[in-house]
Amino acid sequence: MSPSVKFAELWESLLPIGRTESGYRRYTWTDTDSRCREWFCAHATAVGLTVETDRNGNLWGWWDTDAGADRRRHAIVTGSHLDSVPDGGAFDGPLGVVSGLAAVQLLRDRGVAPAHPIAVAVFIEEEGGRFGTACLGSKLLTGAIDPGMVCGLTDDQGVTFADAMAGAGLDPDRIGRDDERLGSVDAFVELHVEQGRALGPLGAAVGLAESIWPHGRWRFDFGGRPDHAGTARYADRNDPVLAFAQTAIAARTRAAERASLATFGKVNVMPGAVNGVAAAVRAWLDARAADEKTLSETVTHLRYDAQGFCDDHGVSFEVRQESSTPLVTFDVELRDRLAAVLGDVPVLASGAGHDAGVLAARLPAAMLFVRNPTGVSHSPAERAERADCEAGVRALAAVLEELAC
Amino acid sequence: MSPSVKFAELWESLLPIGRTESGYRRYTWTDTDSRCREWFCAHATAVGLTVETDRNGNLWGWWDTDAGADRRRHAIVTGSHLDSVPDGGAFDGPLGVVSGLAAVQLLRDRGVAPAHPIAVAVFIEEEGGRFGTACLGSKLLTGAIDPGMVCGLTDDQGVTFADAMAGAGLDPDRIGRDDERLGSVDAFVELHVEQGRALGPLGAAVGLAESIWPHGRWRFDFGGRPDHAGTARYADRNDPVLAFAQTAIAARTRAAERASLATFGKVNVMPGAVNGVAAAVRAWLDARAADEKTLSETVTHLRYDAQGFCDDHGVSFEVRQESSTPLVTFDVELRDRLAAVLGDVPVLASGAGHDAGVLAARLPAAMLFVRNPTGVSHSPAERAERADCEAGVRALAAVLEELAC
Repeated sequence: MSPSVKFAELWESLLPIGRTESGYRRYTWTDTDSRCREWFCAHATAVGLTVETDRNGNLWGWWDTDAGADRRRHAIVTGSHLDSVPDGGAFDGPLGVVSGLAAVQLLRDRGVAPAHPIAVAVFIEEEGGRFGTACLGSKLLTGAIDPGMVCGLTDDQGVTFADAMAGAGLDPDRIGRDDERLGSVDAFVELHVEQGRALGPLGAAVGLAESIWPHGRWRFDFGGRPDHAGTARYADRNDPVLAFAQTAIAARTRAAERASLATFGKVNVMPGAVNGVAAAVRAWLDARAADEKTLSETVTHLRYDAQGFCDDHGVSFEVRQESSTPLVTFDVELRDRLAAVLGDVPVLASGAGHDAGVLAARLPAAMLFVRNPTGVSHSPAERAERADCEAGVRALAAVLEELAC
Repeated sequence: MSPSVKFAELWESLLPIGRTESGYRRYTWTDTDSRCREWFCAHATAVGLTVETDRNGNLWGWWDTDAGADRRRHAIVTGSHLDSVPDGGAFDGPLGVVSGLAAVQLLRDRGVAPAHPIAVAVFIEEEGGRFGTACLGSKLLTGAIDPGMVCGLTDDQGVTFADAMAGAGLDPDRIGRDDERLGSVDAFVELHVEQGRALGPLGAAVGLAESIWPHGRWRFDFGGRPDHAGTARYADRNDPVLAFAQTAIAARTRAAERASLATFGKVNVMPGAVNGVAAAVRAWLDARAADEKTLSETVTHLRYDAQGFCDDHGVSFEVRQESSTPLVTFDVELRDRLAAVLGDVPVLASGAGHDAGVLAARLPAAMLFVRNPTGVSHSPAERAERADCEAGVRALAAVLEELAC
């Protein structure tokens, strides 16, 4: 009989950290984040890994070969992230980290001795929940983002990334591309809770990723003129709330026409007087599509619509693209090896970005998805059944053994 | 030749307090508020008034008769407020206070000796900019609001009115209806910058108020389900931003149909994840109409519309009325006396609530409006010409002399 999966104890020990009544709030470089990092160090050490922090603040728990820590080459790396969106769920990110540790324990229990080093990594600020830009840890590592720009990113209170990182005891002057580290990794495999609900109807607990939809974020600024809600005639108003409202509705229409997605989830109405016409609305568009041409068409049409609404209301309109992620197609050879190990598992496209998608630009990368019964994610309601989580750990362990032995 | 109006110096000395790049932020019981109150004490004293603070925190600068402070009966009171909406303008409120002090100075310079006491009052939290409920100072004074409820009101940081008032050195246990003080007042006349632009086309620097439109505030709560903006299909979403957007557009349509006003100026989208479908939207409706029946119809139709939008999106919907102010018709006899003093000035309805409207329920009250060339208010752009402000001071002085001598 094969050893049992030690998932539950690891999972339960992480659950209380950063949990609030309205969901998880695990933001990078906060006290809660420090507690998550300490949790990782303690539990990685407990399964026999040697933990180090890289220049970008990402954590790496190493299972070295007999050749020791000086010979970390041809490594096979798994992992994910521990930060959350505002009021997020327990699974997005942590499931990959916990499963990585549990897979290592399972391989150890089975007496496996890898020929290549294995590592479990934790990447910082994957969600962009604090500083607004997603996958910072992997983007810094691969050189996909400028370190100086990252240092200047601010949270909602105006605190810079650099100050926050320094406050957590790390040196922001050292962040940036790290080719030596990347060169030591042969493959990266991220396990993640499914987002969407494709696996359920297929009767599969685990799936593989084929690609990640291209996606981007745009900041829409609607500039009106503050006025008195009780005295200004409609004809005299320049109300940015109305121009935004029309734009939000058009976003859904334009995206649905093209089977793509466009969402306004962060909206700031300023200055926020109950008895006043608003001065301005700042709203962030998240848009995604199956290919880059469709994505571009969706956003272009929406911008055109929004400009028309703003003209009607005498409201100024500006758009600034804050991020852009091209289509990611995961390494076919690596995926075929995983499929051979896992048997006949479904292959899915992902609408969500991941560190594996960023790393895929520099090395062979793959993803495993664990079935999500409702499809809900970025929400306290996201979940996966315990049996499916354990199936995920077994699948990940099998993959690591295949690649590292 | 009559003495000149000492308006400019008083006005300029108040301008810097609470001014920010985006407009005025003078919120009740803050450090900025303390500076406004100190300003009033200093300048009221300088024009020979004796300043006292009533149990509700309102300030009163008294010009007593020779009978002294013990004989404050049959008083004629003017004044307004010094607090602002978020990012408000310089005139709404302060113009009435400054004009009151300048009118007293003008009467003194002319050697007028009133037969009845005159007071210049400053009412607290007229805008509801910090605690969300307008005209707190006059409502507490007249007993129009429950003191226990007021103590429990909170600002956006969760600080209660009671704690904030205590922090400003006043005793919240003493707030509430003050019949003795009200009984000592024969009439209240508030001078205010015009909101709207009726006086300009009529060629008048000053007007009189006829009535205040009935108005109210309603909190609309749209409850959706947070989800991932990149993976949740539209058909699976419950997006409260879309239900709110449709409601905001319907508010304008429903109000315009009835020549009334309905505005969403404060909107909170939660939790505010750029890559998430929102969990909830909380939005405050400000609605006003010429009569109570029209107001009620406007809001009823809008609620019906909103419920339909929410049903379409699978979003929950709740409405709570937070305030309601009936039609105010100012005292006709008092207005006729003022009209006789001021000559042929226009008489206007006001869409905005005022302390004078609250006090009108308990004693004869009237309002003077000073021409606003653009009609903009609750905005840094609100203004009145200096010559019109001085005309306002002369009109107020003439009214006080008529009533108090």
